[in-house]
Amino acid sequence: MTEPTRRVGEPSWDAWGDPAHAVSLTEPQRELIVRVLGAAPEDARRRTAESDLRPPPGALPEPARAALADAVGAEHVDAGASARIRHAGGKSTPDLLRRRAGDVADAPDAVVLPADHDEVAAVLAVCAEHGVAVVPFGGGTSVVGGVEPLRGAFTAAVALDLRRLDRLVAVDGTAGTATLQAGLRTPEAEELLGAHGLTLGHQPQSYEYATIGGYAATRSCGQSSSGYGRFDDMVVSLRAATPRGTLDLGRAPSSAAGPDLRRLLLGSEGAFGVITEATLRVRPVPEARHDEAWVFPDFAAGAEALRALAQSGVRPTLVRLSDEQETFVNALLADEEAVPGCLAVITHEGGAEQAAAVRTLTAQTLRRAGGDELGAEPVARWRGGRYLAPYLRDALLDAGVLAETLETATTWSGLHTLREAVMEALTGALATGDGSAPLVLCHVSHVYPEGASLYFTVAAAAGRDPLGRWRAAKCAAGDAIAACGATISHHHAVGTDHRPWMEAEVGPLGVQVLRAVKDTLDPVGVLNPGKLIPERS
Amino acid sequence: MTEPTRRVGEPSWDAWGDPAHAVSLTEPQRELIVRVLGAAPEDARRRTAESDLRPPPGALPEPARAALADAVGAEHVDAGASARIRHAGGKSTPDLLRRRAGDVADAPDAVVLPADHDEVAAVLAVCAEHGVAVVPFGGGTSVVGGVEPLRGAFTAAVALDLRRLDRLVAVDGTAGTATLQAGLRTPEAEELLGAHGLTLGHQPQSYEYATIGGYAATRSCGQSSSGYGRFDDMVVSLRAATPRGTLDLGRAPSSAAGPDLRRLLLGSEGAFGVITEATLRVRPVPEARHDEAWVFPDFAAGAEALRALAQSGVRPTLVRLSDEQETFVNALLADEEAVPGCLAVITHEGGAEQAAAVRTLTAQTLRRAGGDELGAEPVARWRGGRYLAPYLRDALLDAGVLAETLETATTWSGLHTLREAVMEALTGALATGDGSAPLVLCHVSHVYPEGASLYFTVAAAAGRDPLGRWRAAKCAAGDAIAACGATISHHHAVGTDHRPWMEAEVGPLGVQVLRAVKDTLDPVGVLNPGKLIPERS
Repeated sequence: MTEPTRRVGEPSWDAWGDPAHAVSLTEPQRELIVRVLGAAPEDARRRTAESDLRPPPGALPEPARAALADAVGAEHVDAGASARIRHAGGKSTPDLLRRRAGDVADAPDAVVLPADHDEVAAVLAVCAEHGVAVVPFGGGTSVVGGVEPLRGAFTAAVALDLRRLDRLVAVDGTAGTATLQAGLRTPEAEELLGAHGLTLGHQPQSYEYATIGGYAATRSCGQSSSGYGRFDDMVVSLRAATPRGTLDLGRAPSSAAGPDLRRLLLGSEGAFGVITEATLRVRPVPEARHDEAWVFPDFAAGAEALRALAQSGVRPTLVRLSDEQETFVNALLADEEAVPGCLAVITHEGGAEQAAAVRTLTAQTLRRAGGDELGAEPVARWRGGRYLAPYLRDALLDAGVLAETLETATTWSGLHTLREAVMEALTGALATGDGSAPLVLCHVSHVYPEGASLYFTVAAAAGRDPLGRWRAAKCAAGDAIAACGATISHHHAVGTDHRPWMEAEVGPLGVQVLRAVKDTLDPVGVLNPGKLIPERS
Repeated sequence: MTEPTRRVGEPSWDAWGDPAHAVSLTEPQRELIVRVLGAAPEDARRRTAESDLRPPPGALPEPARAALADAVGAEHVDAGASARIRHAGGKSTPDLLRRRAGDVADAPDAVVLPADHDEVAAVLAVCAEHGVAVVPFGGGTSVVGGVEPLRGAFTAAVALDLRRLDRLVAVDGTAGTATLQAGLRTPEAEELLGAHGLTLGHQPQSYEYATIGGYAATRSCGQSSSGYGRFDDMVVSLRAATPRGTLDLGRAPSSAAGPDLRRLLLGSEGAFGVITEATLRVRPVPEARHDEAWVFPDFAAGAEALRALAQSGVRPTLVRLSDEQETFVNALLADEEAVPGCLAVITHEGGAEQAAAVRTLTAQTLRRAGGDELGAEPVARWRGGRYLAPYLRDALLDAGVLAETLETATTWSGLHTLREAVMEALTGALATGDGSAPLVLCHVSHVYPEGASLYFTVAAAAGRDPLGRWRAAKCAAGDAIAACGATISHHHAVGTDHRPWMEAEVGPLGVQVLRAVKDTLDPVGVLNPGKLIPERS
């Protein structure tokens, strides 16, 4: 019952994921999309050959380089063009557009690869002493600019690549926990846990490359959050290196000994410290899995059904609901006949008896809410393609189409207003002179008793200035989210792209609190400058 | 299916709870306890008549008094002896011993009763400007010194009593949330919610007096935490007044927009700001409730059964397990025959179908783990007396017996070592010259997949220096907990009494983070001095 995971190689420097798994559009798909969205073939963005790239000369001062070499070994300070280019950013749309344009001006001056917590601490000490910005780098899958090697007040930046922290440190079978190092990618973590009959159950779309440390630093949420919880909720304890020393947080599953400081590091995006390991709740590899698709007459009915389910306390492992447009487009892409209405995907995992009981209660609730069960086949289709969608973004850029995703969350009572506001913002910002409208799809991807997240996929003609169009759309959507009182991100995190809305999110005083914590842990300010916390005004 | 709640009057100034509900020992009980514990009748602590108390003259400077009167109205600044005495502390054992000795030296210089958030903010501004310590006061039920009116660096202190913030502000039936003001006591909150068919499901032993704001500020955990969650987990958003302005935190059920700053206010114990209202997850008043007691051959078998249950993902509403001694003593106090082994109390609430399904799965798990079901009667007995135990502490003091409770939490793998270490510490610290040993009882009161809390009740001869004996026992237990790597409190919070272990809890750098947050929100340091955060060394 373990998740079959295809092997992936090293990720592409200028596109999502493994180059061997790149997808392309069929000619009819390309023609349809281009026609519907009004994309112009001449706006297709070509990709640049790596050999044509000219990263700027490395600016790391020699004393800093030597001190870093002392800290981690000279062979683990890589100032070569290939390493620098591969750490020049993450996988946001602006990242991809810049890479396509051959722009690697942001490439860090070196990539540093520490072996363990103490070496991470030593690297931070060196960077603080020499005034070098340090950008923690896990899977490099940030879609919000979280790993962009900004220099802040400094002249040089290094990427702190955590890939050598790849050990399963300990398994506590009695407590149902495992201690994992930060640089472990999910498939490797699952392989190590699987040898003990255990799983994390954390499956975000970035599964193939994203790391344990990245999940913690960005408050990741996997597709099976309904059953396994958000990554935040899995963290029993964590260890972080900061320029001011080490934080070891979490002495019990739960506590009332002051504020939960684990939660201050979770979501800190490398601005407070570098999470080097975490002790996480794990589960036995489930005995049973049951997939079932459901169809609802419309999005409102489907959302009501999911609300009833979430508030009943019955929690399937995975719950998501596509709106009418997404249901239609997904069927079109799969070359299937679309069901009328909205498709929901439900999965039950766990002990066989328990999964069966939850399944029965779930079916009762969904049927009462007007749903019809469709069987497992649509879920199998969804499951087969669930890590593929980001690859499609590159294929669309090849065809002159800008594709982006963004997500938010609110209460059930605010859900429809929020959805309409974001759709209107995106549609308005991306309308073209010739009257072509963007395609906006939406699904509920995670449910809570009090509300849910909304995940939007938007595709539009790239136009002459795709980055400008992306900025306009991002800004309109972010403002709409803020105006609705919703959160600027449910699971993509803040990075650079959501930073303008952080003051709306936590208020000016909340921003001051974040700054005070940063100033305490990183007084020189070398840690991941330009992310998370708004500039002082 | 609402909880029948007896009416309580204003609490006693020198004992737990409603004086009308004070309990006394029967003569045989008194004789047995005194004999077993070696208590000397001459060590019984008499109580002092309120008319004999002489609180020190109020030290509130006139300009501060006048400014406070401007902020809240002169009639809401009470410098009378009665009000001051009733805010001289909480309900810890040292509090009770001091009150019995007629010691009200700590009484605040005045009690201030703001009407709403803005008035709370105005009070904080006045106190910061005039250098007056301000101690937020809800139900006054702290058992760890959390509301002791310490002056810190200041010459005067006021108690900020939140009782006038007693409104149900809003109900969102769709989201299943309610916005409640901080000063609402639980029975009043439940009455207001009950009118909408809703309940919080939060039932700590301090239920009768404790307030919404106090629960949030101390990270409270109710007896039904297994089904309803800890109070932390119910908080969708909160509002806090600080000397630097207002914090409004929480824009969605969940978010990845930076660290969860709600969690920084939860557990802040009045040291960062005053929580004035919270939007909380509420549930429909349950359709059905099913109580069942279970018996296990011994504590180890019972703990294993609870672990299996917690890790199965099946969550009854309430789960607790007494050890052998507690099972025996509880039966003795109830004048019932004790079952051999350990008694567990389980409750299922919810929709009828769902509660039945959870009940079946629970029974399967507990039976496989060696448990036998005993029916509902022992649970009814426990339920009838569940808010009474703290009243017994006063009756025991009357008989020269010191009774105290303390609690911690750890992983399942550390549970037995922790239990033995704390028992040994308490037994060693409270042994008397004549060879009498204290009585130490223990139960598992809250379960999580990764671990559980342990709750200890200890009774011993008060001796000539009960405060000294209490200190020795507290210190030994706290050191044992810290040495085991467990948390110093699972739900009683920090206050003054657990402050010496906060550096062990979060490390020296964690303490600096707490200080930095405090310095940002309360730069003058007027908020609840001497609590939570260790002194600068």
